[in-house]
Amino acid sequence: MDERVREHARVLVDWSARVTAGDDVVLSVAEGAHELAVAVARELGERGATVTTLYDSAEVSRGYLRGVAAGDVDVDDDQPVDRALYEAADVVLRLGGGRNTTATADVPRETRRAYATARQDVREARMATDWVSTVHPTRALAQQAGMSVEGYRDFVYDAVLCDWESLAEEMAQLKAIFDAGERVRLVTERADAPNTDVEMRIDGRTAVNSAASVAYDSHNLPSGEVFTAPYATEGEAFFDVPMTIDATRVRDVHLVFEAGDVVDVTAAQGQSAIESVLETDPGARQLGELGVGMNRGIDRFTDSILFDEKMGDTVHLAVGRAYDACLPEGESGTESAVHVDMITDVSERSRLEVDGEVIQRDGTFRWEDGFEAA
Amino acid sequence: MDERVREHARVLVDWSARVTAGDDVVLSVAEGAHELAVAVARELGERGATVTTLYDSAEVSRGYLRGVAAGDVDVDDDQPVDRALYEAADVVLRLGGGRNTTATADVPRETRRAYATARQDVREARMATDWVSTVHPTRALAQQAGMSVEGYRDFVYDAVLCDWESLAEEMAQLKAIFDAGERVRLVTERADAPNTDVEMRIDGRTAVNSAASVAYDSHNLPSGEVFTAPYATEGEAFFDVPMTIDATRVRDVHLVFEAGDVVDVTAAQGQSAIESVLETDPGARQLGELGVGMNRGIDRFTDSILFDEKMGDTVHLAVGRAYDACLPEGESGTESAVHVDMITDVSERSRLEVDGEVIQRDGTFRWEDGFEAA
Repeated sequence: MDERVREHARVLVDWSARVTAGDDVVLSVAEGAHELAVAVARELGERGATVTTLYDSAEVSRGYLRGVAAGDVDVDDDQPVDRALYEAADVVLRLGGGRNTTATADVPRETRRAYATARQDVREARMATDWVSTVHPTRALAQQAGMSVEGYRDFVYDAVLCDWESLAEEMAQLKAIFDAGERVRLVTERADAPNTDVEMRIDGRTAVNSAASVAYDSHNLPSGEVFTAPYATEGEAFFDVPMTIDATRVRDVHLVFEAGDVVDVTAAQGQSAIESVLETDPGARQLGELGVGMNRGIDRFTDSILFDEKMGDTVHLAVGRAYDACLPEGESGTESAVHVDMITDVSERSRLEVDGEVIQRDGTFRWEDGFEAA
Repeated sequence: MDERVREHARVLVDWSARVTAGDDVVLSVAEGAHELAVAVARELGERGATVTTLYDSAEVSRGYLRGVAAGDVDVDDDQPVDRALYEAADVVLRLGGGRNTTATADVPRETRRAYATARQDVREARMATDWVSTVHPTRALAQQAGMSVEGYRDFVYDAVLCDWESLAEEMAQLKAIFDAGERVRLVTERADAPNTDVEMRIDGRTAVNSAASVAYDSHNLPSGEVFTAPYATEGEAFFDVPMTIDATRVRDVHLVFEAGDVVDVTAAQGQSAIESVLETDPGARQLGELGVGMNRGIDRFTDSILFDEKMGDTVHLAVGRAYDACLPEGESGTESAVHVDMITDVSERSRLEVDGEVIQRDGTFRWEDGFEAA
């Protein structure tokens, strides 16, 4: 076994999930993540945790959902087994790593949406645990990224096995600015694409210093972003980083917001996929997240949201569900069965303003060398 | 996909588990059983059941248990996640089919035993559901059987895709004899091996007509045996069919019983494996099952208990846990964390008696042509 797989397991269990003796852990394993699962199980055993292992197979899901469609049955919105298992769990470790990123391409969209809606309780129960999502480098993900598998492994481990404490210190500066701010404005001006000029409120919300650990309310490994839950969004935003939604390629999404809601959407490719997302429920038309990628260890887009949204010199907005960690105790933000991130490159001709003050220009933050306020 | 995989899934879901709309199903998938899991998920979706998919990986288990041993931690006997999920489930479908039948060979035996003991509650919760175990034909199982994978697939589907209603009718005759009987005696006389001459009580117990369906209190697919829960065993028994216990090959086990307990054990190979089983707990030294194999569609031993114990012309005894279906309501039989079956060939020089009357001689039952009472 590649020693980096063992290292990955240790970072996941210790830094990210903070597993201790007696913790009850659900380990969810994608089809291609077997090797990482073996390494993680070893660490969990050594620490005296219990483990329940789920098989997160895209092909099994496809079989099930196509059965639902063929049988023309309603998806049961009472899912007591999944709910009970997440309610009993302290920690959920989700090991991504499929063997075919388009394995569910022929599941009818309405079935997929009905299933997501029916499982809202299950999702809430899972997100109430100390959950962490990570990914094992598979050939399918390498292919999605346009890379060799060996090159992709290097990419993943460079992103995962980084100095998290040091990155957390740097990100704390942006969190402080967001926590004190009331309005964020993002502007990009491009010769060859629509401009972005979007403003949103963030007052009353708490930003997350997402340092890949539940101790920071951060649930992704790798991470390296600062995000908050915006509202009352106005303006237009263009997302030039391609992505995959429900196994469909989506490019060049352009959204228009009025009074917090998306009122118009276009895309150069996959427009119906993003339209379908927006139709899921009322919350799916609102923003649930504004995130700023700050992990410069991630040096390229790989068409995987786990990595892409963390990349330095990027900003992303997500429609759908807001994370509780950003909201005041007891207050709810955007509620939805979906959460879909869209990314824009801010390395050139861009600026991010908080309450009228530029805090990042062309990818450089105001505390960095080379920053130009105007 | 081989059409027999789909047929296997349909027999499992409809005949064996009797899944109907609204059932909450746990689907447990061994490393090599992916294809069958896809087919089963499809059937479950079509019938309007919910599904939770577990990954039953021998290598993940090995990693976990070796971690437990290395960390020198106690196995937690509170396993709330597994308990909660089985308690919430109506049906548990266990798809066997490993990729290496000796994958856990280097797990310390005491760790294995401590884990089995700690999970007694979990096992009880699982066995309180409508559970069914089956197997997908993998290369590793073909190798264990000494067969090509194509030959092994034919073997498995011949055993699984049989006329279960007709076999159930035949087996009902033996069940009636056991239910009316008080004492069973099994005698085999061989030139080259120790004799078997063992007597046990079965009065007050109910035999199971194991026709591969929960409707018959039968939890294996394939099945094809009639079994009951004996007690007060006296005498000696020799088991000439080889087997694998905890990834260790075991041959020619000889047990001596006094007043229901095993008081002496020898084996030509793997003696410490069977000794370790007997030391698990007090119930592990007592019989939990007497079974008579009646599935003549299974035409050879393949070193897999699911098939071997069902083969026609065989009888098996199991040390450890008795099945509730054999016991009067509210009464407990042998209780144990283990249940280990051992098989003897009765095709020659053997007889099975109930209350002094021969009911099977040299493999032929008394209702069959060629039966000789004496």
